[in-house]
Amino acid sequence: MSKLQQVQEWTEQHQADFTYVSDPRTIQYLTGFYSDPIERVLALIVFPDQDPFMFAPALEVEAIKDTGFSFPVYGYLDHENPWQMIADNVKKRVTRPTEIALEKNQLSVDRLEQLQHVFPDAKFNQDITPFINQLRVIKTADEIEKLNVAGKWADFAFEKGFAAVKAGRTEQQVVAELQYALMKEGIMQMSFDTLVQAGAHAAEPHGATNATKFENNELILFDLGTIWQGYISDASRTVALGKPTEKQLDIYQVCLEAQLTAQAAAKPGITAAELDKVARDIITKAGYGEYFIHRLGHGMGMSEHEFPSIMAGNDMVLQPGMCFSIEPGIYIPGVAGVRIEDCVHITETGCEPFTHTPKELTTVG
Amino acid sequence: MSKLQQVQEWTEQHQADFTYVSDPRTIQYLTGFYSDPIERVLALIVFPDQDPFMFAPALEVEAIKDTGFSFPVYGYLDHENPWQMIADNVKKRVTRPTEIALEKNQLSVDRLEQLQHVFPDAKFNQDITPFINQLRVIKTADEIEKLNVAGKWADFAFEKGFAAVKAGRTEQQVVAELQYALMKEGIMQMSFDTLVQAGAHAAEPHGATNATKFENNELILFDLGTIWQGYISDASRTVALGKPTEKQLDIYQVCLEAQLTAQAAAKPGITAAELDKVARDIITKAGYGEYFIHRLGHGMGMSEHEFPSIMAGNDMVLQPGMCFSIEPGIYIPGVAGVRIEDCVHITETGCEPFTHTPKELTTVG
Repeated sequence: MSKLQQVQEWTEQHQADFTYVSDPRTIQYLTGFYSDPIERVLALIVFPDQDPFMFAPALEVEAIKDTGFSFPVYGYLDHENPWQMIADNVKKRVTRPTEIALEKNQLSVDRLEQLQHVFPDAKFNQDITPFINQLRVIKTADEIEKLNVAGKWADFAFEKGFAAVKAGRTEQQVVAELQYALMKEGIMQMSFDTLVQAGAHAAEPHGATNATKFENNELILFDLGTIWQGYISDASRTVALGKPTEKQLDIYQVCLEAQLTAQAAAKPGITAAELDKVARDIITKAGYGEYFIHRLGHGMGMSEHEFPSIMAGNDMVLQPGMCFSIEPGIYIPGVAGVRIEDCVHITETGCEPFTHTPKELTTVG
Repeated sequence: MSKLQQVQEWTEQHQADFTYVSDPRTIQYLTGFYSDPIERVLALIVFPDQDPFMFAPALEVEAIKDTGFSFPVYGYLDHENPWQMIADNVKKRVTRPTEIALEKNQLSVDRLEQLQHVFPDAKFNQDITPFINQLRVIKTADEIEKLNVAGKWADFAFEKGFAAVKAGRTEQQVVAELQYALMKEGIMQMSFDTLVQAGAHAAEPHGATNATKFENNELILFDLGTIWQGYISDASRTVALGKPTEKQLDIYQVCLEAQLTAQAAAKPGITAAELDKVARDIITKAGYGEYFIHRLGHGMGMSEHEFPSIMAGNDMVLQPGMCFSIEPGIYIPGVAGVRIEDCVHITETGCEPFTHTPKELTTVG
C-alpha cells in the first residue's frame, strides 16, 4: 500500500470527509513533490473513497505534474481566493462535508478560520499529525540510502573545512571554503547554516559563525549538514588547533566517551529516554552535567527536527529504521564548547552512522 | 513610543489580558532578538499594564539577554512542558485570563489547543496580525539603511555572477562563484536559494538552479538576495550570452519597459493594484499577458514575503516607507524566461531602488 493510500485509509477509519494535508514536507513524503509556498496555499486533499487532488499556486502546477502526480492539480493566481476554490473543488466530490481532518502542527489558526468559513457545517476534530509522524519515523531502505549519500557529503565538508583552518583565519572564511568545495561538486544546499565556532565562542551552543579569528591552542567546533534529494545530513566534530589545555582535553574525552557509549547502546528495544540517560550519566558523573543543556538527539530525515526526540520523558522504544542524532555537548562559558555528533539509523542489532569522519581528537592547522 | 509599547497599547485597547506573540520575525522586530526555534517554543508575552516577558528554549536565554532585552526571560529544557510553564508565569501576573490575543498567521492549530488547555477560561478572538503588518509595512530610516546595504551586496553578487558565465559552464558553477565571493566578504546568508537559469530553463519561474550548461546565444536569468543585519535584498536580472534571437530580444524589451514604467509610476497615492496594472497592461498589449503568471511584486524587509502585495485586488494606497519588489516576468515554455526586478522604497515623491545594477540588456561571457 502506498503512503498516500495509507492516508486515504486513515481518513476512512477516522470517518473524515477528507484530510487537509498542509505540511510541505508531508506533501513531499506522500507525492514526491516539494515546494515551500511560504504565504501561498499548497494543499493535498485526500478523500476516503475517491481520488485525491492537489491545490497549488499556478506557478507550481507544471512542476507538480512533472513529478508524476497522476491526480488532478488545481492552480490559483495570486489575486484569486484559494479557500473558495478549494471549497468549490471539494464540493464537487462531497456536497456537504461535516468532518475535516487536519495536520494541526502545520496549519495556522488563521487558515483554520478560513476553512471554517468555507465549510461552515464542518467540525475539525481529527489531527492526522501523529499518524504522519508514525509513518515518517520508520525510514525505508530508499530513504536510508539517500541519508547515506547526504552523510558522505558531510564527511567531504569536514575534510575541506579542517584543511582550511589556520591561526588568524576567521570562522567565516572556513565556512566559505567548505561550502565552495561542496558547491563546485553540485551540492548547493546545506541543511542549516554551517556552524564553525572557535574557542570560547563554541560555548554558545546556539550562536552563529562570525568573524572570530582562530588562535593557537584552542578547540574548534564544526556542525554542518548537506541536502541530497530532499534528505539531510547533520554531524558535529570538535577539533584542536595546536595544544588545548588539560581542562579542554578532559571535556573532549568525556564528551567522546558519552557519544561512543550512547552510539554503542543504540539498538532496538532501548527507549529514547534511556539512551539520553546513557550519555547524560557519563557527563554528569564527570562533573559536567550542568553544561549539557540540550537533549541527546533529534530525529531526522527530510528535516533535522523529526521524531524520535532522544530525551528524558520520551518512552518511545527504538525500532529498526528510526533515524536520529546522537550529540552530547558540553559548553562551559569562557572555557570551551565541545559537541560530537553522528546521525544514525537503527538496524536489527544496533545502529549505523551516516557519517564516518573520525571522532578521536583531530589536530588541524 | 517604542514598537513594543505600541503592542502593549494595542493589547490594552483590545481588552486582552495579554498578547501571545509567536512569529520569530515579529519578536525580532519588537525586541531585536532573532532565532527560528523550529519545533521548540519561543514567545513574547505582552500585557496591557505591566512588563512583558519572553519564554524561550534554555539554549537561547543568554543570547536574548545579550541583545539587551531588559525584561524577564524564562527558559525551558527539552523535557519540560513549555505550556504549563508559560501558564504558571502568566498566572503570577494575571490570575485568570479570559481574553488572549494571538498572532493567528503564525500560530499552529495544535499550539492553540495547548493554550486552550492551560487557559481553559480564555477566549482567543483577537488577532494582532493585521496590526503587526500595519506597523511593519512602513519602514524606518534605520531599516531602509539596512535594506540599502543588503542591496549593495546583491549588486556585488550580480557583478561576480555575470563575470563567471561562460558557455559550457553550469548554472550551479556560477552560483558557487558568486556565493563564494560573498562569503569571502563575510556575507554568509542569502535571502533565498540563488537562482541562475539558462535559456528555456528560465521559463520555469519556480524551478531551481541545476547542472544545465550555458550555450551561446541565449538569455540567462539571475534572481538573488543577501541578508544584512536581518534585512534582505532581492533582485533579478536577465543577461545575454552571445546574440539572443529577435523573439527573445523582443520579450526582454517588453519586460524592461514594464519594469521601468512601473518603477517610474511607484509613488505615494497610487494603489498596489493600479501599479500591478501599469506593468501588466504593457505586457498584455505586447501579446505576452498570458505568460506573466504572477503578481508584480511583494513587500519585503526582514523577509521577502511581507506587505504590501502588489497585485490586482489590493487597493492599499502606497505610502512613504513601504518597501516592495517590482518584478514583471515573461515565461514562454521552450523559448525563454525573462524577469527584471528591483526592490524599492516609496519616498515623498516617488521611489528609490535598493539595487543599481544596470537594467539595459547586458552581454556576458
